[in-house]
Amino acid sequence: MALRVGVIGGGQLARMMVPAAVELGIDIRVLAEGPGMSAAIAATAEGDYHDLDTVLAFARDVDVVTFDHEHVPQDVLRALVDAGVAVRPGPDALAVAQDKITMRQRLSELGLPVPDWAAVQDPDELQAFLDDHGGRAVVKTARGGYDGKGVRVVTDPADVSDWFIAVAEAGGGQALLVEELVPFTRELAQSVARRPSGEVVAWPIVETVQRDGVCAEVFAPARDSAGRLADLAEDIAVRIATELGVTGVLAVELFQTDDERILINELAMRPHNTGHWSIDGATTSQFEQHLRAVLDLPLGATGMHAPSAVMINVLGGPADGDLAARYPAALEAFPEAKYHFYGKAPRPGRKIGHVTVIGDDVDDVTYRARSAAAHFDD
Amino acid sequence: MALRVGVIGGGQLARMMVPAAVELGIDIRVLAEGPGMSAAIAATAEGDYHDLDTVLAFARDVDVVTFDHEHVPQDVLRALVDAGVAVRPGPDALAVAQDKITMRQRLSELGLPVPDWAAVQDPDELQAFLDDHGGRAVVKTARGGYDGKGVRVVTDPADVSDWFIAVAEAGGGQALLVEELVPFTRELAQSVARRPSGEVVAWPIVETVQRDGVCAEVFAPARDSAGRLADLAEDIAVRIATELGVTGVLAVELFQTDDERILINELAMRPHNTGHWSIDGATTSQFEQHLRAVLDLPLGATGMHAPSAVMINVLGGPADGDLAARYPAALEAFPEAKYHFYGKAPRPGRKIGHVTVIGDDVDDVTYRARSAAAHFDD
Repeated sequence: MALRVGVIGGGQLARMMVPAAVELGIDIRVLAEGPGMSAAIAATAEGDYHDLDTVLAFARDVDVVTFDHEHVPQDVLRALVDAGVAVRPGPDALAVAQDKITMRQRLSELGLPVPDWAAVQDPDELQAFLDDHGGRAVVKTARGGYDGKGVRVVTDPADVSDWFIAVAEAGGGQALLVEELVPFTRELAQSVARRPSGEVVAWPIVETVQRDGVCAEVFAPARDSAGRLADLAEDIAVRIATELGVTGVLAVELFQTDDERILINELAMRPHNTGHWSIDGATTSQFEQHLRAVLDLPLGATGMHAPSAVMINVLGGPADGDLAARYPAALEAFPEAKYHFYGKAPRPGRKIGHVTVIGDDVDDVTYRARSAAAHFDD
Repeated sequence: MALRVGVIGGGQLARMMVPAAVELGIDIRVLAEGPGMSAAIAATAEGDYHDLDTVLAFARDVDVVTFDHEHVPQDVLRALVDAGVAVRPGPDALAVAQDKITMRQRLSELGLPVPDWAAVQDPDELQAFLDDHGGRAVVKTARGGYDGKGVRVVTDPADVSDWFIAVAEAGGGQALLVEELVPFTRELAQSVARRPSGEVVAWPIVETVQRDGVCAEVFAPARDSAGRLADLAEDIAVRIATELGVTGVLAVELFQTDDERILINELAMRPHNTGHWSIDGATTSQFEQHLRAVLDLPLGATGMHAPSAVMINVLGGPADGDLAARYPAALEAFPEAKYHFYGKAPRPGRKIGHVTVIGDDVDDVTYRARSAAAHFDD
């Protein structure tokens, strides 16, 4: 009997687990939100992950349940655990990834470096934070944000009055997260994987470039990161994974500040866009590693195939929607580039694929990766 | 609309096309022989590939049809072409791979180096060949052989009397192939890919080790192959692909003789066991390249990630059938090894998976690959 992993959610992260599962001989099954999802090839069930019966029925035939996203409600997660299902990462860890205020609280308790922050329930509390931080700050909804959604830079509480109304209507002591605007020189990301038995491995730290709040480019390893910076980032990510009991891949998004500090921006407890380069650039990809980790199998080596790997997202794609028509010119121009598409229709700003190039010289690799990916833009 | 490739046959070669298809954003559909095949994850139809209606119905929804094996009958292939289906490789090329006598005839016509051979219809003809070749020769059934099946070393026509009876009963001028026993120092294999527009690319020549007629180990590149040997093998494979109009991957199995010649042993017009190392060891794997080629997309770069790649087949597997129980020790001992399993139950001699290791030093890589694979033997 092959090992069986069930993935809740049929997006591109579930899709990218499929090649790793097929190669390792693991039976991968996906609970998709509906037909035609990115991971449709492995979808053995369709349904709403908010519905406990749907999720329980799906979980019955697998050895472990893991996730394409962090949105499965806590009551569903805990009912799965109560039913004897191995859920990885588990509810306690996921709770920290599901709520940005909980995340800031836990990281602060652990003494880990985070931006100044506060949970604010009304405009007056936000105004007080603004007054203490030069009149500008970042406000985030505690839940449901991604790719720049649920994030605003504000100078006046009125900038998020709609969110305060929503929080007040929701009741239950809900709040918005406000954070200092960190004066950063660049953004970094550190991915690690941890399995239940405790083993943790790290990939090289990467540099990420965001556009409009969406990851656009990733450089592995981050330039000038060897030594203190890499050690610090790895220590932070290993500590978070261990202290929170994360199982599977953990991605930690970081700010490098003007004064050479590192602050934790966001966490993701699953494979993450900043780790896609590892499919082509590392001995063990984040997707294979996630499967190994949630199955409590020994983790794979994370060394790089070449000194440099650059990943460029394909955001949006051709306006005419005809992605296939762009393949010939791209593949001919850059036969060494690795092209990845997620089975998603082109739409402005949507992550529909990515391109990775590896090689010896970062400038050359960057040029080729950007040029290859540009074939799929308008 | 994604590009759609239909694969006839649900074995491990179809299975290993799945990761490449998923990554490239290609919609892969498999006509499997039945349930539970290696490529079940991509099976959209089950049925008999000898049945034209079954194959035509399957072919209706894809852009191109290709193959997990070479056994689809010529009448089915030609009916597909007549119905307007893109069939790659096409019937004319496949005819050469389907019948070893046809193959020897065509290669001889092209002036390519092959062992001495003859088509023999009765024991007297075989005896005459034996008399001319020192009393020993290899006899092969023209069709249906693989992995050492349909191949016998003979010293007496009586050694294959059962085959002569079958040939006589079949009628239609059928014959057996007899070949000289080539005094070879080692076996090599050269894979290339060709697309309809004519582009051909080659991977490095590899050395293969067979046990009991079954591929057991592959070393990429073949030791001491740089220069004349590699050039010669590549020229032979490119010439075969071009002259026969092969589309997709072509693997040419070769003998290196005591007197430093190269003779063609077998052809396969599909991804081949001797190219599995390319999944982990080359920029473009044979499976991705096959998909590109049959879709007439520009071919990918074939350079290696490291100076050496060694692939060891897992033949048979554990006697107790519990493959999953062997993962922890193997993965822990060799975290840098790439483990591949085909979703097939262990059975003596059966190809159920393979392990590849890449690195700088061939002896070290060989040791690690063999040791990692040995974890799955008894």
